[in-house]
Amino acid sequence: MSEPMDYASAGVDIDLEGSAVASLIGALSKSVRQPGTPGAPVDLPGGFGGLIEFGDNLLAMATDGVGSKLQIATMLEQWGGVGIDCMAMNVNDLLCVGAEPIAFVDYVAVPKPDPAIHAALGASLAEACRQARVTLAGGETASLPGIVTELDLSGTALGWLPKGEAITGEHLKDGDVLIGLPASGIHSNGYSLVRKIVAHAGLTYTDAAPFAAEHPGRSLMRWTEGEPTLGEVVLNPTRIYCDPVVDLLNAARGSEGFNVADIRGICHITGGGLSNLLRLHPTLGWDIHTPLPVLPEFEWLQAAGGVETREMYRTFNMGMGMVLAVDAAQASHILEWLTKRMQGVALVGHVRDHGHKVIHAIEGVEFSHY
Amino acid sequence: MSEPMDYASAGVDIDLEGSAVASLIGALSKSVRQPGTPGAPVDLPGGFGGLIEFGDNLLAMATDGVGSKLQIATMLEQWGGVGIDCMAMNVNDLLCVGAEPIAFVDYVAVPKPDPAIHAALGASLAEACRQARVTLAGGETASLPGIVTELDLSGTALGWLPKGEAITGEHLKDGDVLIGLPASGIHSNGYSLVRKIVAHAGLTYTDAAPFAAEHPGRSLMRWTEGEPTLGEVVLNPTRIYCDPVVDLLNAARGSEGFNVADIRGICHITGGGLSNLLRLHPTLGWDIHTPLPVLPEFEWLQAAGGVETREMYRTFNMGMGMVLAVDAAQASHILEWLTKRMQGVALVGHVRDHGHKVIHAIEGVEFSHY
Repeated sequence: MSEPMDYASAGVDIDLEGSAVASLIGALSKSVRQPGTPGAPVDLPGGFGGLIEFGDNLLAMATDGVGSKLQIATMLEQWGGVGIDCMAMNVNDLLCVGAEPIAFVDYVAVPKPDPAIHAALGASLAEACRQARVTLAGGETASLPGIVTELDLSGTALGWLPKGEAITGEHLKDGDVLIGLPASGIHSNGYSLVRKIVAHAGLTYTDAAPFAAEHPGRSLMRWTEGEPTLGEVVLNPTRIYCDPVVDLLNAARGSEGFNVADIRGICHITGGGLSNLLRLHPTLGWDIHTPLPVLPEFEWLQAAGGVETREMYRTFNMGMGMVLAVDAAQASHILEWLTKRMQGVALVGHVRDHGHKVIHAIEGVEFSHY
Repeated sequence: MSEPMDYASAGVDIDLEGSAVASLIGALSKSVRQPGTPGAPVDLPGGFGGLIEFGDNLLAMATDGVGSKLQIATMLEQWGGVGIDCMAMNVNDLLCVGAEPIAFVDYVAVPKPDPAIHAALGASLAEACRQARVTLAGGETASLPGIVTELDLSGTALGWLPKGEAITGEHLKDGDVLIGLPASGIHSNGYSLVRKIVAHAGLTYTDAAPFAAEHPGRSLMRWTEGEPTLGEVVLNPTRIYCDPVVDLLNAARGSEGFNVADIRGICHITGGGLSNLLRLHPTLGWDIHTPLPVLPEFEWLQAAGGVETREMYRTFNMGMGMVLAVDAAQASHILEWLTKRMQGVALVGHVRDHGHKVIHAIEGVEFSHY
């Protein structure tokens, strides 16, 4: 390969997307709902999830789709995981503000109705509701032959939290401990690059994975016998972190010895990879000195695509799907609590007052904007 | 034209959609949230909007998209109304259970980011938030060049109501009065047929409308000078009924002399036209003996497409976008209250114990299933 691959060469221009989103936000007027009334907006620093007032509580909404991972699922006619992906992308965002997800609605756009697709999505969404512990409160299936050429799937999750308990990152400080929660795979970001690399490698998704896919603490959703296929690895559903994060928040409200205030920030690692951490605080930095083990598919993707290491960490989760920043005095207690509930949780780093940047054990993996 | 046009010949198979949705719902497991906890599902007869428990209140979510109306907007590069359509399709559904909409999130899928589209959508959504009086609590813009060929827009609205005040249709009875609220145009349903008829008529959307588009109480969103174009008429945004319906509900909770319990059923007339009414009660029927005036675009569409009258009423709102069924003893009071706030509101019929069917002043316009 003459040039290393990166995300922009795979057809995604993150800066252009940012500019488009800025146009959208910029055109929006201020809310018409007054402070103190149901639905009044709550401005939080960081800003995962849109929060609104509701009496003594806050409600949070998150909306997101599965993106181009769907194209691989559709090519393979394997939609059993995409409902979980759709749920995960939304509820994991809600967790970042300390909200407990309670309900979900899905939006399905197809060129024409196909009971086989919908039955598979239904089963996948039902499993997703079980994992995220939410009610499926509705959904819409739109037949749009002039607009979509194949399945698009998105959804909206609703969560709640007691007023005053939002996790915003504003109380982060130098020395806070970073706890990493392991990913189940590529999750739902970076698939334009994944597809480009797989095509370049001359492989198909029904081929056996050209690497050992086993990894401690992660199981694959399988639909073949024998060695895992490349498709089974890249389509492995995104991990839903409600268990253990909702339980952790509830434990913090009980008599576990740590409080919600000890959980200073939560970050869902999505598109943008580790650079997502920079959203949590305007000036503090992040030192990932002891990263979680890299999942084997990322090592293969990097080698097969000739992707630079920094680009890998800016595009993929690399094995860590969520990061909790907690008070150093409670860190060992919280870490022990989490370790009992999820294999592979570990202390991965610290918040540092070293400028608004992320640094990493691998030299050159450094981000100062997202 | 050799054969009259209908909705199925325009490429939409309502029965096939129903079967696909049934597959989806059938595959869903029961909710994991227990009664009495936040998010526990609430089963209501009728079932517009998914309701969940939240303390002393109920929350309702509705999700829907704009559908193929978007294709005309994109062809004309006029997206100023589609944010209002998207909001309307969702908040009007929430009103049907007696919920007050409080927040909204949008989902935009495009082949590539386009700041011009997003700025237009942003302005449209901001106006929609103003009309619906909701907070825009978030949104997602997805670039999906392999899935969408042009803009798709959907959204999710959140509403609330006090527990015990849901409007379900279960207390409907023979003699209840039907109050019709006028539509602003075609709203957001039936556009596959609209596009087929316009193409058959050999017209383009930039031509002057081949009929007098003026209609009392409805104004058009214009982007040209002079006579309204066909595009301006068919893209006129869907009416948002929060004003006056939310105010009516609040008035009913105050000292107006009528109560929420006097409002027995509310129906949003969408795809399926008048047959939507059948969802509100399992056995009672509906007599629309004094319909609202038909909007001129429907008369033209019927003539230009040679569409049968019954098919028109099964596909379009025909000028009535929402129906309220109210206690006969309070009907004149409620009608007077509404008439002060929206031009064209009128008594249009009665609930009748004549079997589970809708009848209409026009003979042959009769529906016994949706």
